[in-house]
Amino acid sequence: ILLAPPSAAQTDPLPSWNDGANKQAIIAFVEAVTEEGGPDYVAPGDRIATFDNDGTLWPEHPIYTQLAFAIDRLKAMAPEHPEWQNTEPFKFAIENDMEALAKGGEKGFMEIIAATHAGMSTADFEKIVTDWYKTARHPRFDRAYTDLAYQPMLDLMDYLRANEFKTFIVSGGGIEFMRPMTEAVYGIPTEQVVGSSIKTKFEMVDGKPMLMRLPEVAFVDNEGGKPVGINAHIGKLPIAAFGNTDGDIQMLEWTAAGDGKRLMMLVFHDDADREYAYGPANGEPETHFGAFTQALMDQATRSGWNVISMKNDWATIFPPMK
Amino acid sequence: ILLAPPSAAQTDPLPSWNDGANKQAIIAFVEAVTEEGGPDYVAPGDRIATFDNDGTLWPEHPIYTQLAFAIDRLKAMAPEHPEWQNTEPFKFAIENDMEALAKGGEKGFMEIIAATHAGMSTADFEKIVTDWYKTARHPRFDRAYTDLAYQPMLDLMDYLRANEFKTFIVSGGGIEFMRPMTEAVYGIPTEQVVGSSIKTKFEMVDGKPMLMRLPEVAFVDNEGGKPVGINAHIGKLPIAAFGNTDGDIQMLEWTAAGDGKRLMMLVFHDDADREYAYGPANGEPETHFGAFTQALMDQATRSGWNVISMKNDWATIFPPMK
Ligand SMILES: [Ca+2]
Ligand SMILES: [Ca+2]
Repeated sequence: ILLAPPSAAQTDPLPSWNDGANKQAIIAFVEAVTEEGGPDYVAPGDRIATFDNDGTLWPEHPIYTQLAFAIDRLKAMAPEHPEWQNTEPFKFAIENDMEALAKGGEKGFMEIIAATHAGMSTADFEKIVTDWYKTARHPRFDRAYTDLAYQPMLDLMDYLRANEFKTFIVSGGGIEFMRPMTEAVYGIPTEQVVGSSIKTKFEMVDGKPMLMRLPEVAFVDNEGGKPVGINAHIGKLPIAAFGNTDGDIQMLEWTAAGDGKRLMMLVFHDDADREYAYGPANGEPETHFGAFTQALMDQATRSGWNVISMKNDWATIFPPMK
Repeated sequence: ILLAPPSAAQTDPLPSWNDGANKQAIIAFVEAVTEEGGPDYVAPGDRIATFDNDGTLWPEHPIYTQLAFAIDRLKAMAPEHPEWQNTEPFKFAIENDMEALAKGGEKGFMEIIAATHAGMSTADFEKIVTDWYKTARHPRFDRAYTDLAYQPMLDLMDYLRANEFKTFIVSGGGIEFMRPMTEAVYGIPTEQVVGSSIKTKFEMVDGKPMLMRLPEVAFVDNEGGKPVGINAHIGKLPIAAFGNTDGDIQMLEWTAAGDGKRLMMLVFHDDADREYAYGPANGEPETHFGAFTQALMDQATRSGWNVISMKNDWATIFPPMK
């Protein structure tokens, strides 16, 4: 089914974006690479677009969604682990002391992930995650996390797919944490999700084959890991890439390295009223979750990467309430 | 574009297959899972079919195609490595002593793979492989390896895709060795190829981002590794799986484990006249490349997996000469 959109003059392909340089850059890019016979034409099979997830497609404040899930899991499992009451970082999580938890950095998060994400089959983990998505609510917006995808990015992905792009998620988040929701929330099937992972092992349990999740990191899909993950899962260079932090630099550099027209964009959170504002770039507050450094802002300017101002470029942030 | 095929009564969807139980099983399966409202209906997004490569989609005799490539590479590199003349397994490869090489087993192959497949960028390796496919010829059939895909399996993949299946390769072979040819030969894009891999590392070389191939195994996509690879790359259970050796058992078990209708098939090489005959199942000769054991034959019988007789089920083996 060929979903060629009506021309922009008739219908706005990005209705949740305000007019401006960034919206124009997207439309000009898509029109250039889809113009048959044009100098920038790209065949449909090579129209690969990659999207970071946390902070690019949905919020990552006050904490990463996956960390919220892990803390809920930890609390549910705590009665069977009395030792956690006196062990860092578990005690911080159980006591809701996010400041202390955040100070422990990635190492603390990884310990919590290992305690909550391993030791079950992939099928059981999928059920745990699916059930959590059904009940968990974002603490500020009081909506399901899965209702908080950024509407402008949903419009953008629809627009790209209508122009025969294949859209992939390439996230530092856990691949098995994302997959239960990506099809319903973003229209991205499981086979187009790239993420961090722990090792799994094939085992026969009571005559039934299972993949057991082991407490051992297999792959970290962040920074230089993003090009590695793109190569491993996709096997071609993206022609468009979207991120929001220093962890996306290598993905954007890798995308930019190809011949022909390219689009690299970064979401900048400068909208405390409607979502969050954090940097530290451009004098926005420091953050433990999803830092956009001034060095990244400078690199974006030097490299011709588009920086999306959430405040100015996005007419709406979240989908309408159902 | 919806490519719904005319009904089988009008046009044979598998013209290179002889009539018989296996051809009937394929057609009955496809008709069942695509019948809207039927008891076995599967939504298009879940119509995942996985194919082993060597011995399932193209020949693996007299030696694996990738080993033929590695030996050619080794010979090309030998002038810079005089020490290989006196070192196993390299001397066997340079002297074309396939018997001695085969006796060294997987360990010897891995040493040759490491010496020939690492130490360059992914882009350079892709060019080396692409150039080799253009010039290398199969020693018996005197045709490019890329002209020797099994016509019945090409028909089968076309038939599945016409019925909105997504076809994936899941091979013990190297993912980067297959990708340069899978689209042209099988109609399978790079993002639907799962295989064994070595580690890669993102590096800036003279200001240009590269993925460098390291002499370290990242993943072995064989036996229990096949379900792990399927889960990592696809994230859903296949509903159909095709293999030809003991290395495919876990993939077929994993496929069979899902609810609903499933199709598991194994290619058995019993056609010395038109291709090769090897087992040791059913009294065919032993082999170092692609063994189909009697235990596998017995498991297939017990489990209701279809065993394809190359001799009886396939009307033709290779595509017509161009
Ligand atoms: Ca992010
Ligand atoms: Ca095989």
